[in-house]
Amino acid sequence: MARVVESDSVSGGSDVLLSLDSIRESLIRQEDTIVFTLIERANFPLNSPAFEESLCLDSGNSSSLPEFFVREIETLQAKIGRYEDPEENPFFLDNIPPSVYPTHKYPPVLHPKALSVNINKRIWDTYFKEMLPLFVKPGDDGKYASTAASDLACLQAISRRIHFGKFVAEVKFRDAPQDYEPAIRAKDTEALMKLLTFEKVEEMVKKRVQKKAETFGQEVKCSSGEESERKYKVDPLLVSRIYGEWLIPLTKIVEVEYLLRRLD
Amino acid sequence: MARVVESDSVSGGSDVLLSLDSIRESLIRQEDTIVFTLIERANFPLNSPAFEESLCLDSGNSSSLPEFFVREIETLQAKIGRYEDPEENPFFLDNIPPSVYPTHKYPPVLHPKALSVNINKRIWDTYFKEMLPLFVKPGDDGKYASTAASDLACLQAISRRIHFGKFVAEVKFRDAPQDYEPAIRAKDTEALMKLLTFEKVEEMVKKRVQKKAETFGQEVKCSSGEESERKYKVDPLLVSRIYGEWLIPLTKIVEVEYLLRRLD
Repeated sequence: MARVVESDSVSGGSDVLLSLDSIRESLIRQEDTIVFTLIERANFPLNSPAFEESLCLDSGNSSSLPEFFVREIETLQAKIGRYEDPEENPFFLDNIPPSVYPTHKYPPVLHPKALSVNINKRIWDTYFKEMLPLFVKPGDDGKYASTAASDLACLQAISRRIHFGKFVAEVKFRDAPQDYEPAIRAKDTEALMKLLTFEKVEEMVKKRVQKKAETFGQEVKCSSGEESERKYKVDPLLVSRIYGEWLIPLTKIVEVEYLLRRLD
Repeated sequence: MARVVESDSVSGGSDVLLSLDSIRESLIRQEDTIVFTLIERANFPLNSPAFEESLCLDSGNSSSLPEFFVREIETLQAKIGRYEDPEENPFFLDNIPPSVYPTHKYPPVLHPKALSVNINKRIWDTYFKEMLPLFVKPGDDGKYASTAASDLACLQAISRRIHFGKFVAEVKFRDAPQDYEPAIRAKDTEALMKLLTFEKVEEMVKKRVQKKAETFGQEVKCSSGEESERKYKVDPLLVSRIYGEWLIPLTKIVEVEYLLRRLD
């Protein structure tokens, strides 16, 4: 049970490896994952009957299908060590069951008093109420189980991205504690938000994810002569908007929340 | 519990909708999913310690991490109705637990004596022993839970594609029963395989998935001036080979198995 594996991954790495560059590289790679999951989710219509009907379960709780599914999956994923990875944050688990299998020991990178920042409740609501109806057709094809698996993939990819704000904040803080400490001590959220905002970078991210949605969401035809049709599985402008309206702002909220506890 | 939803999807659709065109369209769309999942899996190294270590579980069974995970996920997915969809075939469940939530009623399309064809045991072995080491780097980054989730996504996408052979066989049989019946009655596997093989189509599929791997696996850069680097996340030739060596032949094996039981 006690096998320990030395890490060489970005976030689990030693301090030397925790650089803004390596974090940025991971965030860029995560964009691909997010675009893939959105494209995959767009295969199915909204399938809202799955959210609307709550059933009373054996546990005595009442739960919609996606909530039941995600809660149970998280319990199962905890049993194989998912939440020992500081990049992963559960949506529902208050008490994380221990892993059944030997797990990787992640060296501590985040500040112990700040690492528990978790805004998944907000991400859940934003995803189902605001994002999903934007890029998914209305309708009901009955494929609730596949839809729930697809929602889970989107939610986990988006949550990982947004909570990566903790690593971003940690690195930025370590690089220039003197810039952040006064605002943290004054609990000046606005000043922190300003310190963390780089509009040019945000614009670049929005442009890049738009281009990724164009590239990954196109219909690829077989023969080289045949031009790929410019019909996208998810509107690239919507992907850019999803980043601009929710993913980037929520990441910064995680950064601020983290910094506010960074000196505790 | 008895809410029934009328289907308008390809495989769940009425006979009128079960055409070779609609099946082909679904298979083409599934290529995107498969290429996405392979690219995502290539984010992680092999992480073979997760397969090699088997633990004795509460159930008394001994199981490796991926097997434990997939088995438990399948039980959970059955509870939300996944396996009532004739496109989905479990890897481990012998007895499929009933769904807790109301499910979609799929009109019967496949022949009742032939719909249970399931070659997932073979797909499992092929995936872990032959395919995975081809496109994934050796190594161990400790991210076993994320790797298992990624393996599951690959396995389910590949299994769905291969078992789509049942729908292909059903449509081909209905289109020309007189061509198939003598070989079925003679249990002439070789003759059936010949009837089902169209080398030109297979070559086209292999070319198309190669192009998809080039398109979806490239590094997309931000600015339009900057050329996208021709460095792929998964070697496009390998994706073509995965189709040519395993996905296409295994789909045909499902077709033959299905046809052999089609007159029962």
